[in-house]
Amino acid sequence: MSGIFITLEGGDGAGKSTQAELLGAWLEARGHEVVRTREPGGTRLGVEIRRLLLHGGEEVGEVDPRAEALLYAADRAQHVARVVRPALERGAVVVQDRYIDSSLAYQGAGRVLDVVDVRRISEWATEGLRPALTVLLDLDPADAAARLESRGGTDRLESEADDFHRAVRAGFLGLAEADPHRFLVLDAAQPPEDLNAAVIARVAPLLTAL
Amino acid sequence: MSGIFITLEGGDGAGKSTQAELLGAWLEARGHEVVRTREPGGTRLGVEIRRLLLHGGEEVGEVDPRAEALLYAADRAQHVARVVRPALERGAVVVQDRYIDSSLAYQGAGRVLDVVDVRRISEWATEGLRPALTVLLDLDPADAAARLESRGGTDRLESEADDFHRAVRAGFLGLAEADPHRFLVLDAAQPPEDLNAAVIARVAPLLTAL
Repeated sequence: MSGIFITLEGGDGAGKSTQAELLGAWLEARGHEVVRTREPGGTRLGVEIRRLLLHGGEEVGEVDPRAEALLYAADRAQHVARVVRPALERGAVVVQDRYIDSSLAYQGAGRVLDVVDVRRISEWATEGLRPALTVLLDLDPADAAARLESRGGTDRLESEADDFHRAVRAGFLGLAEADPHRFLVLDAAQPPEDLNAAVIARVAPLLTAL
Repeated sequence: MSGIFITLEGGDGAGKSTQAELLGAWLEARGHEVVRTREPGGTRLGVEIRRLLLHGGEEVGEVDPRAEALLYAADRAQHVARVVRPALERGAVVVQDRYIDSSLAYQGAGRVLDVVDVRRISEWATEGLRPALTVLLDLDPADAAARLESRGGTDRLESEADDFHRAVRAGFLGLAEADPHRFLVLDAAQPPEDLNAAVIARVAPLLTAL
């Protein structure tokens, strides 16, 4: 495959969408085909799966944790097979909001399922497709909550939820520490332009392979 | 768990529904709680998943084989967690149309995915829940096709489909051979009452444990 697969990770409110947009614009200005996508919900099947996951309570009853993990994996399999791999095969740069690391960090924080199993299933779902670069936008959950609150859509997180989001953050940092060659960890409290500059500095050398 | 988990396997047209009904009636006449259920589609989530699997072409595009296998596994995880285990825990007899063996026989015949992987994922989805008894209703695919045709709902199978259904049959027989203690293999060309008698002869000793 001749393209480049870049993922953005971090909690909600860390600025992943903004960084994906800035990076995509920079790449397009240099003549690269950019495919911006996300999980879950990056395919038509994924949109249906996402609907089941997010609105499960009303329509389908409580979703069992294993069923939930398998639905995320099904979304991922479809997305990689139908969107990500075809894009990479034609030489595009795929800039993706969330991938396997999100599953591992969130499942690890929830402590219901064994993260080793979740990783194994995701790797099977994707036939082992790994990003060339994963940008982790690291932010204190309290700062992320304040940002989300200022956007107006979200209530202030409860202290119990704070513990969960701290565990998610620790999970992401642990994954980055275990795979420093793939990860770029950035302090997401910095201004967006500074973050973008740091991302570009890491992406630019990858483009010489295209 | 104090109940008994019985599964019925075999191709479409082999008579699984009839045997489930006859067995269920016999058990209920003896005062047992019977839960008759099926995969896929034995829960509200499963109904939604089944809809995506069977009508995927129109609504969500072609479903990737790995995504499909993971959707079946998600259906199974939800079904075991929410229906089968609770029933077994309160001492019921669960009589189920299709379970893991169907996934293995059909995937094996399709030859796209490694059956070892499919089994491993199903075992994770179900936390290793195995039936006490699996009744395999074995029928020549040509006979099954004639039965389905006489019901009026199905066109005569094409010869290519015949090859597939022969491979599914061989898959089921191979699974039974590998696990003779769990399987009861019956020639489904026999009259339904004779099949029911053979099933009861095998089920009756299991009930002494209830």
